[in-house]
Amino acid sequence: MSDDALRIAIIGEAYDGLVAELEAAGARCVADPAEADGVVVAFGGRPEALRAALDAHSNVRWVQLPSAGIELFADSLAAHPQCDWTSAKGAYALPVAEHALALTLALLRELPRRARARAWGPAAGTSLHGLRVTVLGAGGVAQEIVRLMGCFHTEVTVVRRQAEPMRGAARTVTTAELGRILPDTDVLVLAAALTSGTRQLLDATALAALPERAVLVNIARGALIDTDALVAALRSGHLAGAALDVTDPEPLPAGHPLWSEPRALITPHSADTLEMIQPLLAARAAENVAALRSGAPLVGLVDAAAGY
Amino acid sequence: MSDDALRIAIIGEAYDGLVAELEAAGARCVADPAEADGVVVAFGGRPEALRAALDAHSNVRWVQLPSAGIELFADSLAAHPQCDWTSAKGAYALPVAEHALALTLALLRELPRRARARAWGPAAGTSLHGLRVTVLGAGGVAQEIVRLMGCFHTEVTVVRRQAEPMRGAARTVTTAELGRILPDTDVLVLAAALTSGTRQLLDATALAALPERAVLVNIARGALIDTDALVAALRSGHLAGAALDVTDPEPLPAGHPLWSEPRALITPHSADTLEMIQPLLAARAAENVAALRSGAPLVGLVDAAAGY
Repeated sequence: MSDDALRIAIIGEAYDGLVAELEAAGARCVADPAEADGVVVAFGGRPEALRAALDAHSNVRWVQLPSAGIELFADSLAAHPQCDWTSAKGAYALPVAEHALALTLALLRELPRRARARAWGPAAGTSLHGLRVTVLGAGGVAQEIVRLMGCFHTEVTVVRRQAEPMRGAARTVTTAELGRILPDTDVLVLAAALTSGTRQLLDATALAALPERAVLVNIARGALIDTDALVAALRSGHLAGAALDVTDPEPLPAGHPLWSEPRALITPHSADTLEMIQPLLAARAAENVAALRSGAPLVGLVDAAAGY
Repeated sequence: MSDDALRIAIIGEAYDGLVAELEAAGARCVADPAEADGVVVAFGGRPEALRAALDAHSNVRWVQLPSAGIELFADSLAAHPQCDWTSAKGAYALPVAEHALALTLALLRELPRRARARAWGPAAGTSLHGLRVTVLGAGGVAQEIVRLMGCFHTEVTVVRRQAEPMRGAARTVTTAELGRILPDTDVLVLAAALTSGTRQLLDATALAALPERAVLVNIARGALIDTDALVAALRSGHLAGAALDVTDPEPLPAGHPLWSEPRALITPHSADTLEMIQPLLAARAAENVAALRSGAPLVGLVDAAAGY
């Protein structure tokens, strides 16, 4: 370890892979935030512990958060704008997008019904090939979803804040145009950050604009959807199916009508399990340690105004 | 329609798309096989009807079968070797391979358990990224499965009759080497024809050679697996899961132990539904009409000795 090593305090679980990757990138892990140049919030790191460390120690100039969403850490972020803040946005894109595809195919191929069946049934299902897919969001996860959808000759429309084009998408439109795109959507995948502009974006009106054969997949944040409106849409047979890895409320309480809705498939926020993301957070944090030491741009820099 | 049109009799359902595509390729559809140069066996075409037509009318020089497997038509094929026989092998590769991927991801992401759950549970699951995938077979479906697996940075081993390399596969081995590959397999996908060399290839010994975390997917023919041995392997917890679109016996009778096995997922031979394959059979048959008229090689030519 050289003397010019970046001193890093870990808040949360300092698992072996994380420490090893940080040190390989030129960090020295220290126990006390008072001695740290930067803080890595690992899994299980409490927002209050981060806030206390930052309030007490003005030496910290960089904070790495463990998730793509920043909601939990919003008050620390607002109180310490002098720090560079990086999140895990995009770092977990591979497993999360894979889960989105798994859920999409499961709905199209009617796998929830098959999993519950106790007898052979008539062959049924829809192929993803040739379908029109709408992806809400344009971050790392959304980009990876677009790439995977491209493996199936789909026509992808990306809905994002600004209508900048995205590789692999047939077109990009702004969030304001969502209502115009929904009637021509076979598969709607939600991969956007939760912001004031996206909260309950999928309300009763938006859900009603989807065709009856459409399926809806959410691997982002539960509150992108008005849950009561979704329950009503599924009950009425308006949607072919909905697969949710995130819910509002979350965890979805026992007895909630979605648990008994045959067209719904719920996974318990398992798109990116701890086992999958531990090496990915370590890689992101180490990349940023190397960037800080070399003066390269940080990866996953938080845009506090945008909310992600 | 020109006078040199190829006269085609359709046995089975002469659906609109089929007739239109055949005629666009230069065929004239005739009702009576006595007047036909070729026969297209469409969906619902009975093997006995084909046999009777061929026995009675020596003018038929080409037969298009509606499936990849030729078992149902084996006696007609043996009795009329003077005809050119083409099957649908490879024609349904896109939807069938897509179903294989859907089943693979469903097992890895524990979707059957989630579909049956009535409450939130701990996050669990495995990502396909980086896994070792073994594909049995090397036809059109297997090639498409290898392509899709390549979208997930998997390491693919193909097991086939001859060890010729396949694009996208890290290695190819012969069927005799299957036992050596199984212990290093995370995902085993069966996509081979059913022949005397592959019947019950996945017996108790082969299943025991798979690691405990492995998942097994069969979208080819049920009898590739010794079903009783599979039931025993799943019950003992030796396999993480099995997803079967084809079974032995098929349909799988109500009350069969696989229906109540939590690690099993059964789909009712729905990898390629009639709706998905009607346009694909029409395209294959039309391609062969065009080939016969121009002298180009037929597509999907049956190798009677090989059994597919």
